[in-house]
Amino acid sequence: MAEESFVGDLPVKRPREDEENGAFNATEAMETGTNSSEYISSVIPGWFSEISPMWPGEAHSLKVEKILFQGKSDYQNVMVFQSSTYGKVLVLDGVIQLTERDECAYQEMITHLPLCSIVNPKKVLVIGGGDGGVLREVARHSSVEQIDICEIDKMVVDVSKEFFPEVAVGYEDPRVTLHVGDGVAFLKAVTEGTYDAIIVDSSDPIGPAQELFEKPFFESVAKALRPGGVVSTQAESIWLHMNIIEDIVANCRQIFKGSVNYAWTTVPTYPRPVTYPLPSHFGMIGFMLCSTEGPPVDFKHPVNPIDVDGSQRNSKPLKFYNSELHTAAFCLPSFAKKVIDSVAK
Amino acid sequence: MAEESFVGDLPVKRPREDEENGAFNATEAMETGTNSSEYISSVIPGWFSEISPMWPGEAHSLKVEKILFQGKSDYQNVMVFQSSTYGKVLVLDGVIQLTERDECAYQEMITHLPLCSIVNPKKVLVIGGGDGGVLREVARHSSVEQIDICEIDKMVVDVSKEFFPEVAVGYEDPRVTLHVGDGVAFLKAVTEGTYDAIIVDSSDPIGPAQELFEKPFFESVAKALRPGGVVSTQAESIWLHMNIIEDIVANCRQIFKGSVNYAWTTVPTYPRPVTYPLPSHFGMIGFMLCSTEGPPVDFKHPVNPIDVDGSQRNSKPLKFYNSELHTAAFCLPSFAKKVIDSVAK
Repeated sequence: MAEESFVGDLPVKRPREDEENGAFNATEAMETGTNSSEYISSVIPGWFSEISPMWPGEAHSLKVEKILFQGKSDYQNVMVFQSSTYGKVLVLDGVIQLTERDECAYQEMITHLPLCSIVNPKKVLVIGGGDGGVLREVARHSSVEQIDICEIDKMVVDVSKEFFPEVAVGYEDPRVTLHVGDGVAFLKAVTEGTYDAIIVDSSDPIGPAQELFEKPFFESVAKALRPGGVVSTQAESIWLHMNIIEDIVANCRQIFKGSVNYAWTTVPTYPRPVTYPLPSHFGMIGFMLCSTEGPPVDFKHPVNPIDVDGSQRNSKPLKFYNSELHTAAFCLPSFAKKVIDSVAK
Repeated sequence: MAEESFVGDLPVKRPREDEENGAFNATEAMETGTNSSEYISSVIPGWFSEISPMWPGEAHSLKVEKILFQGKSDYQNVMVFQSSTYGKVLVLDGVIQLTERDECAYQEMITHLPLCSIVNPKKVLVIGGGDGGVLREVARHSSVEQIDICEIDKMVVDVSKEFFPEVAVGYEDPRVTLHVGDGVAFLKAVTEGTYDAIIVDSSDPIGPAQELFEKPFFESVAKALRPGGVVSTQAESIWLHMNIIEDIVANCRQIFKGSVNYAWTTVPTYPRPVTYPLPSHFGMIGFMLCSTEGPPVDFKHPVNPIDVDGSQRNSKPLKFYNSELHTAAFCLPSFAKKVIDSVAK
């Protein structure tokens, strides 16, 4: 992997909302001297409780065995802990980003839904995704010649390499170049029509990553893609934020003149605030899959099936994605289909 | 609706595990004089917290506005509360059974997956499902002539009729006969080959409903079905209890000589213990769809499409189920497919 500091527009610090308005912040609390174990059990009351013998498999689900890392980067608080049943867990500003047990679902779907939908992808850009998991999945595609990643927070990259080697393994691929910097600025500096596919592995559209779901960003994405190029981006839960999804779909329909689709999958823990007992996506997450004007892309029928066994590039077998599930991901419940279909084309 | 007390074998009380081993029990706590509002906020710490402004849509998700009912039947503790964003919520022994907002997903899928897979279903049996939601869905099928339901707990029926009229509306259909009694005993008394379809709307296979997932029960179900008849039963989350699913699939393959399939869908809140912050099914739930020896049933390709608009029987439009989603529900992630396919046929 090559590495370079991105020196186009200066990276813009996007302060997290909870720093601004004084909400409780896990790492800060620890840094001010609270005993870690005391902190955990008081911030996440009940998570380690043995209350219900009806759910023996869950009582310890996210029990914190040991806090492995805590630090504060220029952008966010970063924590890694060892859980007893989900392996190691990466937390940014109190929101679970990945667990060793279920990261496969998100990483495989956000990557292979776009890359299996076009023939011979060669140049791929990842915005965000500093943990390296999306890189690992992109690297499975032998047609790919160039993988650029623009991640704003170097600490996420470093922490992932230290604590999540099976995720950060993506960085070891010689086709990867890491650009540390702001994704919005990076995209603006990209030569028009450069990429076959862009994967936006961001946090949620409510909060600091909001601009990654608005028209100016999508316009930069569309410009950076070749004709008939594809983008996938995280797009919330239909159970929670149907109005936000409606807005995202409307924005995408205006910008991407090829096709615009919503897909979904199940991901038990991603992403969920550890300071709050309700999962933010209720066990599922959606993706926008769009293409630019050019050769038509039918996302629902993958034309570039991936080597599921991973033998092609000596990678491990896929745990989640397969071609059947690819197509199924675009079948929506009636209430969601109705809203999404109603957005003006 | 006709109603009769089931007087075959006597109803067997199945004590809930948490009563036996002294785990915390919500209703009991309230009955011993704790103030309700104090109780709620101490049992579910954090659920009403405003901690994270990052998730404004969630901060009140299951906030208890008002406790509407609490009682103790012969079988379990029954509670109904008004939430601020999920409507009214039914809780049995601390486990959420349904919320007005998302009950559609579970009720529609567990009902239409089997009934849309056979032509002209006429006689249908529901085991459990005392809230009436499955009855409401069965009643959409105009070919159906007889709908029997065997629910052990009359209090669930009464509470549903009082607080969930849009769910319990299923009881108003003249084809419905309610049998109050034990489902296992009821099934044993059924004449061989009576039903076209049986829907088992039970609680989880770990705990009191365990016998509803074991071979003797499945044998009774198979006997009560006509040749080529179908059964659907709740079957856990692939993320949580893959070993339990493996056992259920193995049992089904031995008993049901037609076809045996696993399907899944997303249901944000069902069923989740309110005393514990992690959802028990991580936002998804699975179903076993099986058929007996006889005319072959291909569950993946529905042959009996339902009137989605509900105009046929003056019912409301379907919110969740549609034919595309029916087929998609059988597409599994690679790790689950591998385990389920490996179970000896």
